[in-house]
Amino acid sequence: MERVLRLVISCPDRVGIVARVSGLLAQYNGSILEANHHADLAQGWFFMRNEIKASSLPFGVEKLAEIFTPIARDLNMTFQVTDTGSSKRIALMCSRDSHCLADILNRWQSGDLPCDIPCVISNHDDLRSLVEWHGIPFFHVPVDPANKQEHFDEIERLIAAHQIDSIVLARYMQIIPAALCHSYPNRIINIHHSFLPSFIGARPYHQAYERGVKLIGATCHYVTADLDSGPIIDQDVVRITHRDLVEDMVRLGKDCEKSVLARGLRWHLEDRVLVHGNKTVIFN
Amino acid sequence: MERVLRLVISCPDRVGIVARVSGLLAQYNGSILEANHHADLAQGWFFMRNEIKASSLPFGVEKLAEIFTPIARDLNMTFQVTDTGSSKRIALMCSRDSHCLADILNRWQSGDLPCDIPCVISNHDDLRSLVEWHGIPFFHVPVDPANKQEHFDEIERLIAAHQIDSIVLARYMQIIPAALCHSYPNRIINIHHSFLPSFIGARPYHQAYERGVKLIGATCHYVTADLDSGPIIDQDVVRITHRDLVEDMVRLGKDCEKSVLARGLRWHLEDRVLVHGNKTVIFN
Amino acid sequence: MERVLRLVISCPDRVGIVARVSGLLAQYNGSILEANHHADLAQGWFFMRNEIKASSLPFGVEKLAEIFTPIARDLNMTFQVTDTGSSKRIALMCSRDSHCLADILNRWQSGDLPCDIPCVISNHDDLRSLVEWHGIPFFHVPVDPANKQEHFDEIERLIAAHQIDSIVLARYMQIIPAALCHSYPNRIINIHHSFLPSFIGARPYHQAYERGVKLIGATCHYVTADLDSGPIIDQDVVRITHRDLVEDMVRLGKDCEKSVLARGLRWHLEDRVLVHGNKTVIFN
Amino acid sequence: MERVLRLVISCPDRVGIVARVSGLLAQYNGSILEANHHADLAQGWFFMRNEIKASSLPFGVEKLAEIFTPIARDLNMTFQVTDTGSSKRIALMCSRDSHCLADILNRWQSGDLPCDIPCVISNHDDLRSLVEWHGIPFFHVPVDPANKQEHFDEIERLIAAHQIDSIVLARYMQIIPAALCHSYPNRIINIHHSFLPSFIGARPYHQAYERGVKLIGATCHYVTADLDSGPIIDQDVVRITHRDLVEDMVRLGKDCEKSVLARGLRWHLEDRVLVHGNKTVIFN
Repeated sequence: MERVLRLVISCPDRVGIVARVSGLLAQYNGSILEANHHADLAQGWFFMRNEIKASSLPFGVEKLAEIFTPIARDLNMTFQVTDTGSSKRIALMCSRDSHCLADILNRWQSGDLPCDIPCVISNHDDLRSLVEWHGIPFFHVPVDPANKQEHFDEIERLIAAHQIDSIVLARYMQIIPAALCHSYPNRIINIHHSFLPSFIGARPYHQAYERGVKLIGATCHYVTADLDSGPIIDQDVVRITHRDLVEDMVRLGKDCEKSVLARGLRWHLEDRVLVHGNKTVIFN
Repeated sequence: MERVLRLVISCPDRVGIVARVSGLLAQYNGSILEANHHADLAQGWFFMRNEIKASSLPFGVEKLAEIFTPIARDLNMTFQVTDTGSSKRIALMCSRDSHCLADILNRWQSGDLPCDIPCVISNHDDLRSLVEWHGIPFFHVPVDPANKQEHFDEIERLIAAHQIDSIVLARYMQIIPAALCHSYPNRIINIHHSFLPSFIGARPYHQAYERGVKLIGATCHYVTADLDSGPIIDQDVVRITHRDLVEDMVRLGKDCEKSVLARGLRWHLEDRVLVHGNKTVIFN
Repeated sequence: MERVLRLVISCPDRVGIVARVSGLLAQYNGSILEANHHADLAQGWFFMRNEIKASSLPFGVEKLAEIFTPIARDLNMTFQVTDTGSSKRIALMCSRDSHCLADILNRWQSGDLPCDIPCVISNHDDLRSLVEWHGIPFFHVPVDPANKQEHFDEIERLIAAHQIDSIVLARYMQIIPAALCHSYPNRIINIHHSFLPSFIGARPYHQAYERGVKLIGATCHYVTADLDSGPIIDQDVVRITHRDLVEDMVRLGKDCEKSVLARGLRWHLEDRVLVHGNKTVIFN
Repeated sequence: MERVLRLVISCPDRVGIVARVSGLLAQYNGSILEANHHADLAQGWFFMRNEIKASSLPFGVEKLAEIFTPIARDLNMTFQVTDTGSSKRIALMCSRDSHCLADILNRWQSGDLPCDIPCVISNHDDLRSLVEWHGIPFFHVPVDPANKQEHFDEIERLIAAHQIDSIVLARYMQIIPAALCHSYPNRIINIHHSFLPSFIGARPYHQAYERGVKLIGATCHYVTADLDSGPIIDQDVVRITHRDLVEDMVRLGKDCEKSVLARGLRWHLEDRVLVHGNKTVIFN
């Protein structure tokens, strides 16, 4: 796979942004492999993502950031430069259900998910063997309902120790404290087992069964301090019928959950998800 | 098209229901073209729908009802017998948007919707020409916000005068009064332009835009006195992106609305929708 | 709706294309509302589409083409400039089935399809009244199987007389002669009632029924001299079951046909479809 | 989970079949949990599946078969009686790709697939560790292109030795010899990585890329001696764009393959798939 530098930008919209950015890249002979723009006219905001062939540039990611900084300052940009040569470091968190975890691990092992997974953390010990078979360290951090603080202190310590970029909640069934959310803004990904904003909170399949909906869904979103209300990355649905009981929904929903989570995670890893306010721009 | 009698049943579940019903039909040489059963074990309730070739029976719908009554009484059944030889009479109600109305009228005119449409009623006069071109009487019944009662009195009068079986709200934008809901239980069909229970009430596409969902939807349901909360007949979704503004959602949603409404209406016309509590059994 | 100029480009891929194009636009203060790029690395070909706010430029479409020509020559580009202020002129062709035609006409009448429809041409007279109710001239051009040439001569005459840009075959059931295909390259849009390349040619639903597929589909494509083999614009599918007979597939397929055709037509009208070889790039 | 007996029937259609079958079940107090019928009027054939609560009957599966035999003989039925208390024995066959295999093994381990898996057979040794971690014996049976007969002799020996009911080809990349197909009619399940009948044979994603389709698919079918042409159990599709190269299709298609295969396998295990001619009736 060709090594690629990614330049992801957001800034107030105005005339000439693309010309400035692409002009700079052309000046250094940068070969653009993929480019996406979006102007949110209602918000007056501009978003851009460029994939540049690393071998076409005479320098690497630090120098690219350096030469780009004056433009960014001038145009009031937030920007980020990444290099596909160095993978993001992802911590997976899970509880007892294996479907999302096993799915991500298989994709990772097959080379289909471009990331490192330095650790898996769980409040239960059930999935240790699965994780360790993949050669990944597993940390069992039990939760004491009377003292959740200790649990999350230990998690924060593990995440720091493993130099984690982003956290994936692969059906981890605890609510993340606001402080942790704030420490990793738009870097904690959750899969919620409903088509949000329907059925926020606990037991969404039970809620769906009670309401008699004809489609159930799953939502991949960034975690904020506001439960199940963070920016949505992706969603999908699966058709059900009157014959499906809650346990059937749970089973059918698993397929939806794992594919939506994998898709959202992949886009996150490839820097395709830009957040503005509580909404996402997805450059896919 | 072969003429068919339909026998639709719901009753407390117990052993031997199918044997009793199918035994009776066999006794009169009734040829079953399609049969569906459903036992809701949680509720202890049984549902059944039979399509019987009319020409295989030595009698018609009244006599079938008569010979079936003792079994129904015995097994505590609610049942209904209909004959595809006599179509249901449907009143369509609309406001200004033509997409659902035009779609239903085209299906009806093409012979794809087995019903009569004796009248279309609207609080605006905009769609008169479209309706009349199809040879259907159009009634303009304006709404005075200060006196909605008069509007609905006139509607009830028209519905009674045209011996209407069921009412279809094809993007009719007024809330139906509780009294009218009670008069036509499970016989008023609405299309709501969201994936219920998300975005109940007014301007659902605006709500969807604000929340940043990645799929928008439409829900076909029976109207009850509780706004947008009646039994769901069918739902579907369509994918959107960050590029879609509210007006794009409105446009994309139209396709979803018209296909979901047409599907739900068709099932209703074919007696495939059985309501129990606030949920539906769909024998399709 | 804001007036927009569209600049659509394809050319051999090389470094600096975006810089040149966006530099030129920025020089004249052109405000880019939407931009899409695609580099086909296998073919070494580059595709680009820009929407520029018309009011931001000091000139119109002819002058934009003029100042762009030197760049285009320099970079060996094919390009096209259009102005949303002047709509494309579309001829619809149909036979007896009304579903696609009625659907397009309703979208057009509702202002959802940005085009003019100067005429509808059919080999049958059945749909005359529907068309004329929409205020559009209808031309009945019968086909004599023994002399199809006359039929198509008359069609070519009508198309020329009405200064037609593109032709939409809305379930027009005749094979278009090669000469006509060549006269309107990538400007004749067909809806085929199967998921191509499955079930090319006649009676695709019968073929689907025989094979026992579980999904049926529809394909919108540009017409070439090679039957049902032109560049695909869009496709979709609908689920069927063992209960569905050919006539059910025909009915279910109609929904698929009309939505796929409308989507493909819309993209064509908005210059979102770029053809390279026998494949399309869709900038949507 | 409640133990259930399943009675699956197919026979020439005639009046009174349901009455006879349900009458017999009622006579022994059999409580029907789920029932499905289908009359194929074109073929004059009738299909039926009943799930009977095991505890409601005074006998087991052998006795049920015994008392049912006279009716079956009388009505010229093919029938099958199974007991959910004894699981089907499935052999999985794979090559090098792990996605379908890992997915099935995770479902099985989670208790979501009601079967036993006594062995996995592969022509490569790559997936041994994955299989053995699940506690299942793995047999590496290499293929010598010059002598495939030996390979399949050994496979037949393993299948016989493990008393296998049905075989699942989880991306096993060899063509099954006609003799083996005939030995296990409607008991060898394959997942083909295209939307059949499009792209039969080798490298379907390459074929799809060449044709420029906008959806790719997967098909789960029973294997017959005629390559990729056996009765279709299930199909699904996933949307692609002009940006997707063959390797993207391979990756995106994996999700489709694994969910379609799992769904088809589940229906097979639950005796929901009835084959008539080259088509399936799916009672789900």
